[in-house]
Amino acid sequence: MTANRSAVVLLSGGLDSATCLAIAKDRGLAVHAVSFRYGQRHQFELQRAAQIANHVGTASHRVVDIDLAQFGGSALTDPTVDVPKSDSVQQIGSSIPITYVPARNTVFLSLALALAETIDSRDIFIGVNALDYSGYPDCRGEFIRAYEAMANLATRAGVEGEQPLTIHTPLIDLTKAQIIAQGLALGVDYSMTISCYDPIDNQSPCGHCDACLLRAKGFAENGIVDPALP
Amino acid sequence: MTANRSAVVLLSGGLDSATCLAIAKDRGLAVHAVSFRYGQRHQFELQRAAQIANHVGTASHRVVDIDLAQFGGSALTDPTVDVPKSDSVQQIGSSIPITYVPARNTVFLSLALALAETIDSRDIFIGVNALDYSGYPDCRGEFIRAYEAMANLATRAGVEGEQPLTIHTPLIDLTKAQIIAQGLALGVDYSMTISCYDPIDNQSPCGHCDACLLRAKGFAENGIVDPALP
Repeated sequence: MTANRSAVVLLSGGLDSATCLAIAKDRGLAVHAVSFRYGQRHQFELQRAAQIANHVGTASHRVVDIDLAQFGGSALTDPTVDVPKSDSVQQIGSSIPITYVPARNTVFLSLALALAETIDSRDIFIGVNALDYSGYPDCRGEFIRAYEAMANLATRAGVEGEQPLTIHTPLIDLTKAQIIAQGLALGVDYSMTISCYDPIDNQSPCGHCDACLLRAKGFAENGIVDPALP
Repeated sequence: MTANRSAVVLLSGGLDSATCLAIAKDRGLAVHAVSFRYGQRHQFELQRAAQIANHVGTASHRVVDIDLAQFGGSALTDPTVDVPKSDSVQQIGSSIPITYVPARNTVFLSLALALAETIDSRDIFIGVNALDYSGYPDCRGEFIRAYEAMANLATRAGVEGEQPLTIHTPLIDLTKAQIIAQGLALGVDYSMTISCYDPIDNQSPCGHCDACLLRAKGFAENGIVDPALP
């Protein structure tokens, strides 16, 4: 890919998407970041997403409103459903967790696709990871490949002679430790990122949800202290 | 499909989606209609969608807010871009028209999918039509089949032992005249529907946009006057 070619990057404000953004930027792309106010329990991550976008230097950063909480069905959007807490990462299993938000990545990718088509970009980056989140159907490689095939029929990109659209998933086969190592090499400032599903006072990591446990393990395996910890 | 099985139906307030709703209802399904306030030029169609849903008798009807106008790129969401007008349907060609909204059906189907997954429905109905709108990539059968394949990997429906999800497109191969004939047989009240891209005073059909021309032709071929005409 050549310099100034544009890409759309999904940016949640978490560790994975911040790393994914750095990777797209490192490839010389003009990056259009997009975040979602979707009814998540805490919107602190959107402040962090804006900080990260500003720090990395994006061509644009949008926050798109789409209320997924109106459909319900997840601990991440329904304040009456508790986020599971534990002391170890062992309990993360293969069934779909209650923190799964129905069709969330499909909705987010579709809005990223609308943006990509409008700005004539054929590259979308999403920081999904199949190892740590094997219980989320929409984090699997087979889902992403099917999404890409669909997107190439849905849009102008599917017209003969046009450049096809690619969904890039640079983190999909990496462990959390490998993601962090790659981000550190690219200068990601992880102190700006927030991964917690249910932060204390809406801003401090709880330390006990699946996201906190996986993150802690990833930093420990790199032999460093998480710079986002208070 | 047995009685009381539920389905999600995309309902715009236009002729096609009203017919599609009647078809789903006629199949004995408990119908959850969903409409979108997406930044369309006129929101009169949302009032009509509510009227239609009420008339047919749906299990629920939601209006979901998703601002596609923020991305631009279409005459249907950008008031500074004129909707093309003409006196005959002849000019509808095979290139993508300016009234195409980037990734619109992908976004709408994705939100319908989020709803379907939450209410545990495995049937989504969309009134796309490949004949009249061959210039819209996201109205083609091959797009719908790719979407369905993706949706079955994206959600709980894709888990082993689960009932797969189906995207139903009962109008896809019909002419506008055939759609109207089928709707009339099912008792659709077309006086409630609005198809115009750019209605006068936000409520009366202009008579000259592609949607008005196709609709007029369909009623003429059935030998009747469009009951929605003033």
